[in-house]
Amino acid sequence: MPLGTDYTNQDCAVARSLEVVGERWTLLIVRDLFYGIRRYNELRKHIGLPPATLTDRLNHLVEEDVVERIPGEGARDEYRLTPKGEGLWPVVCGLAQWGNANYVEPERRMGYKHRADGGELNANGSCSVCGEIPDASEVMVQKATPLPKDAFAVALQEPHRLLQPLRP
Amino acid sequence: MPLGTDYTNQDCAVARSLEVVGERWTLLIVRDLFYGIRRYNELRKHIGLPPATLTDRLNHLVEEDVVERIPGEGARDEYRLTPKGEGLWPVVCGLAQWGNANYVEPERRMGYKHRADGGELNANGSCSVCGEIPDASEVMVQKATPLPKDAFAVALQEPHRLLQPLRP
Repeated sequence: MPLGTDYTNQDCAVARSLEVVGERWTLLIVRDLFYGIRRYNELRKHIGLPPATLTDRLNHLVEEDVVERIPGEGARDEYRLTPKGEGLWPVVCGLAQWGNANYVEPERRMGYKHRADGGELNANGSCSVCGEIPDASEVMVQKATPLPKDAFAVALQEPHRLLQPLRP
Repeated sequence: MPLGTDYTNQDCAVARSLEVVGERWTLLIVRDLFYGIRRYNELRKHIGLPPATLTDRLNHLVEEDVVERIPGEGARDEYRLTPKGEGLWPVVCGLAQWGNANYVEPERRMGYKHRADGGELNANGSCSVCGEIPDASEVMVQKATPLPKDAFAVALQEPHRLLQPLRP
């Protein structure tokens, strides 16, 4: 998302980041990759995106080394966050916690917990038990109430470690 | 930014947040409000936005109680983040740190420091000296190299406390 020449000139790190991940849908794709949804068709169905849009966004993320395309089971390629992409966890976690606090009923919130001690994550991503800020790979997610027909939401009723493949 | 009925149904906190702050330019407005840029014309000039777009984004943020319009000096109203808006700090900080790490030369980065002890903030927003995660109001920013003609970048060469009014 080119934000205009002014932004390139401003050296603003927020603007630079938004040029890479600020386009409509992109952070939802990144969110699903954190959840472990890795296949093109699964991403498309889960987010409800037209194929052209998903392809465009994924290609941009691969170009920017946020996502890599890897051989998956069978003949299907899969998409996975690179270490650079995993560095977006504070952004995704921040959006999730802010959305939970302000827009989602407590009983419908996705729970984020520190894998080591089961502590809920605070609004700033730190563990409410030990105070550490776990990397995404040390975070467990679990959904309280799945929506009917959303196979991934059903799968997420079991505790699931972020970045591990999610197979409904 | 309505992301489609599927998202409303999904109760996804990330999607809900993006409906409020995911529209093009919105997080750059929020960033400037953290820096203390509060006047309509200053926001418009600093971000380089057409008035209709800035008005639209600000109205949406006011409706969602992210921003409030308050009487400023003289007859001019100003815009300020509400406590709910200040809760977006982990998101803005995450984008800034990720952008700095990946896209901005070290000598041109905006520095983020903990006000209490001067510690640089880590990628996850924690202080490199004491390990705490300061709220935005306890963070100092300072720009190394201002761009010519950007009065705010020049003002930010002096250490500046987030959320305090920035007057070039």
